[in-house]
Amino acid sequence: MKKEPAIVLTNGMLDSDNAKTCHGLLRGTDRFEILAVIDHRFAGEDAGTILDGHALGVPVYASVNDYFAADNPQPTYCVVGVALPGGLLPEDFRSELIDAMQHNCSLVNGLHTFLSDDMEFDTLAKEKGLILMDIRKPRPRTELSFWNGSIFEVKTPRIAVLGMDCAIGKRTTCRFLMEACREHGIQAEMIFTGQTGWMQGYPHGFIFDSTVNDFISGEIEKAIVNCDREENPDLILIEGQSALRNPTGPCGSEFLMSGQVKGVVLQHAPGREFHEGTEHVGCPIPTVASEIALIGMYGAEVLAVTLNEMGQTDEQMQEHQRRLEAELGIPVLRPLKEGVDRLIPVVRQFIDENGGE
Amino acid sequence: MKKEPAIVLTNGMLDSDNAKTCHGLLRGTDRFEILAVIDHRFAGEDAGTILDGHALGVPVYASVNDYFAADNPQPTYCVVGVALPGGLLPEDFRSELIDAMQHNCSLVNGLHTFLSDDMEFDTLAKEKGLILMDIRKPRPRTELSFWNGSIFEVKTPRIAVLGMDCAIGKRTTCRFLMEACREHGIQAEMIFTGQTGWMQGYPHGFIFDSTVNDFISGEIEKAIVNCDREENPDLILIEGQSALRNPTGPCGSEFLMSGQVKGVVLQHAPGREFHEGTEHVGCPIPTVASEIALIGMYGAEVLAVTLNEMGQTDEQMQEHQRRLEAELGIPVLRPLKEGVDRLIPVVRQFIDENGGE
Repeated sequence: MKKEPAIVLTNGMLDSDNAKTCHGLLRGTDRFEILAVIDHRFAGEDAGTILDGHALGVPVYASVNDYFAADNPQPTYCVVGVALPGGLLPEDFRSELIDAMQHNCSLVNGLHTFLSDDMEFDTLAKEKGLILMDIRKPRPRTELSFWNGSIFEVKTPRIAVLGMDCAIGKRTTCRFLMEACREHGIQAEMIFTGQTGWMQGYPHGFIFDSTVNDFISGEIEKAIVNCDREENPDLILIEGQSALRNPTGPCGSEFLMSGQVKGVVLQHAPGREFHEGTEHVGCPIPTVASEIALIGMYGAEVLAVTLNEMGQTDEQMQEHQRRLEAELGIPVLRPLKEGVDRLIPVVRQFIDENGGE
Repeated sequence: MKKEPAIVLTNGMLDSDNAKTCHGLLRGTDRFEILAVIDHRFAGEDAGTILDGHALGVPVYASVNDYFAADNPQPTYCVVGVALPGGLLPEDFRSELIDAMQHNCSLVNGLHTFLSDDMEFDTLAKEKGLILMDIRKPRPRTELSFWNGSIFEVKTPRIAVLGMDCAIGKRTTCRFLMEACREHGIQAEMIFTGQTGWMQGYPHGFIFDSTVNDFISGEIEKAIVNCDREENPDLILIEGQSALRNPTGPCGSEFLMSGQVKGVVLQHAPGREFHEGTEHVGCPIPTVASEIALIGMYGAEVLAVTLNEMGQTDEQMQEHQRRLEAELGIPVLRPLKEGVDRLIPVVRQFIDENGGE
């Protein structure tokens, strides 16, 4: 994949969770070459320093016009770098995006509000021959597939990274696992299922949330089948979404049944009590043990639990890890602390037992 | 709901399973007044006689032009009465639909192929001021809702009719149960979730399959909340879709979690071995006992099992019923044979135990 030069707009939110699209792009993307971040609150700093204290050589400019005034290279795209509850475009983003288009940038947008449905953006894009790429816009049905059973021809073992809740670190754990596998000589590929995965440029996958329900099972199957045919990998990893019993949008059985996935790595946040977005009504996250039993009823085995460190001290995390490992009898890891190398023997055994070559 | 006069086009398929949309309309609809069926193979007969041997006073004409030549009343709509694998419009339907439009009928279509995307239909509709109603066309996002937790304000007990597979009789059992409840003084309402339910004119619900995944949980919640507010019922019944472990499109947890449904009636076809559409790869339907355990893990109790009679003799059905009732310890019914009155005490107890007034 040729990397397209891009600037990313966060407009005052670079240091907040709302900028998770930007954060994902800064952590690594094969789709874009990130030239700069546009954020008036952090102008003059390095975007990586704001993200996690490590400079990345990505400068922050106060505005799109400042970026161009500094005689910087021409980006192909300006990416909306935030995701907000409700999915609306913040009003103060509009003028920056218009400025970017005036400087001949096409736009990439992962919000629920589509720029291509907005008269002002649409008119200007047509006038200047630019693209408005609304990545959550449902794809036309002619591009989508129904499930047809071809998954049963795929002999490559599959592991899904599922979670006890949404926004808990599934994609990051999945990426870590893919990288660790490759470092240890296991040719692993990853199927993305969220918009950040798309932005990061994985070649196989689809955006689960913005797919019409009829085609979810077929798109999962097709992504796995195509990945298997084109990459001939040793292992296919699948980024999960949400959680099986999350009332805000239960999800997970689709991967296990339609993708015929037999192995699961389960991401858990011991510091979180309620499903995200249900704090006002109090829907408790179930126990890890009951989730493992539930996953078992879908014919898949949980190989390991990985922990999200949110809101916990190092001491608390050590205690969670000890307690869960004793209770569950499977490896419990802290990916951000220790990496995921301890999973490699588990993965090797899973591949051996599930028909891998 | 004012019934709109309509003719239904099956074009040679009236006696096949493919005409299930037409069959649903003949069984009863509050949305349409069915004036005639158009089917060249059964011209001159009564549509009800072809359906199940009982005349309904709905004549069959060989063609749309024959219908109008016989000086019949003007229909508002012509409904495509078939659903086909792949969802394409059969080529020989086209000329009949064009004839219907020439006679000033708007069209109603539940196929995956949208008439409004077809230049010929679209041009003629605009010219004549007619409507092309593609009921599977995803609704605009501005009409859709995210889940927000308002389901927890609904005190009315909810029962979902789930199934061991798709196309197994969930909607019919759900309708029977609603009617039986009403006959016994329980004011029950039904939430539709499929296109036939829409065609039959239930006021609350949405078409699950053609909804973008992001909004499924919110649409379930909204349908229940609105039904509760507007009808103030004693019981809300929810038509399920597919089956929890159906690889062609697993479904069910959405109703239980996002709709916070605590009671389930489980539809089962003892004569069916594999999930429909998986016969070529052989995905066996799980046991009823394991399905009940799985539903239990989502916090809901299976109150009764209802049986689909497909491919079984009366004697075999009696044996299935005896065996399952002994094994499961809950009522097992044959709705088409005995009705669902035996469920009424179970429903009453469920309402008493789940906060109904």
